[in-house]
Amino acid sequence: MSKKGTLFVISGPSGVGKGTLKEVLLAELAGIKLSISVTTRKPRVGEVDGRDYFFVSEETFKELILEDKLLEWAKVYTNMYGTPRDFVLENLNQGQDILLEIDIQGALQIKKKMPDGVFIFISPPSIEELGLRLYSRGKDSQESINIRLAACKDELKYSKHYNYIVVNDNISEAVDKLKSIIVAERCKIEKLD
Amino acid sequence: MSKKGTLFVISGPSGVGKGTLKEVLLAELAGIKLSISVTTRKPRVGEVDGRDYFFVSEETFKELILEDKLLEWAKVYTNMYGTPRDFVLENLNQGQDILLEIDIQGALQIKKKMPDGVFIFISPPSIEELGLRLYSRGKDSQESINIRLAACKDELKYSKHYNYIVVNDNISEAVDKLKSIIVAERCKIEKLD
Repeated sequence: MSKKGTLFVISGPSGVGKGTLKEVLLAELAGIKLSISVTTRKPRVGEVDGRDYFFVSEETFKELILEDKLLEWAKVYTNMYGTPRDFVLENLNQGQDILLEIDIQGALQIKKKMPDGVFIFISPPSIEELGLRLYSRGKDSQESINIRLAACKDELKYSKHYNYIVVNDNISEAVDKLKSIIVAERCKIEKLD
Repeated sequence: MSKKGTLFVISGPSGVGKGTLKEVLLAELAGIKLSISVTTRKPRVGEVDGRDYFFVSEETFKELILEDKLLEWAKVYTNMYGTPRDFVLENLNQGQDILLEIDIQGALQIKKKMPDGVFIFISPPSIEELGLRLYSRGKDSQESINIRLAACKDELKYSKHYNYIVVNDNISEAVDKLKSIIVAERCKIEKLD
């Protein structure tokens, strides 16, 4: 079979835990490759260039936009994030499934360009729970957390543009659901032509 | 949520192993209830009335048809099989997922009446492999096996009317795929309204 790969997009409000879900999913599921984003934001402790992100300057990022080398890009707070177009398309054409973890703005841009992708919305159990998580993560100020919670209420309404919703109230259950979605999509009749 | 249940239909050529897959699936997956068919055929060794099938006379079966109490029915070889309409609809309306194991003719009839069902085609790895399985099962004559293999070649083309295809080359892998399909369908956005 000269079957194309599928683009799986994991997305949702900031702080919902999609990064952790992505890590566990990649460790447990064979045959899926991570799409690495380009970003202008500074690496957090433990993040590695070329593994977690391609960390670039704002100048380099703007060149990538002008050369149409990004499948999507967005400015989130003061940082820019983008998805390298060639990396994704070449892999899909070779039959490789690709996993992309991205914020909601990015996912909606990607969906316009790649409507055949599988879009999975990661939802917090509740706004209150998300607030507790952001607080206990200790990376953000109370003010920054309040801004994010307000944004999240707004963002939940975008879930209707996605194919699936996975509520992240328990990491291993949420990962099992993500694995199930990927396995099921691989069994779809229209994917076997 | 006053969410309706989903009808999952497992179907495929005779001898493909869908009965075994159904048994293992029911034992391993919570929250799904088996739809029990009505049939005029004689019970096989080990089959129990009201668990494997409702075994009825041809007269009773014809009454059920006339009273429109069957969601579908079919004559397969010399026997009649049907799906009790009320049992399925009442359960779905109560939010209960229903699993139905049925031959291809029945599945296609059901699909016309219940297009929102999830239709899963169980495929043999190959026609040759199916022949070996039917032979080693020891329930059928060589002539009967030949008739079934010819029918199977014909039946494989119906897979395009289904939502998913699961190749049954390994029972536990096939069951995992079936579980994944059910879990994924439960995560679909349109199911959460």
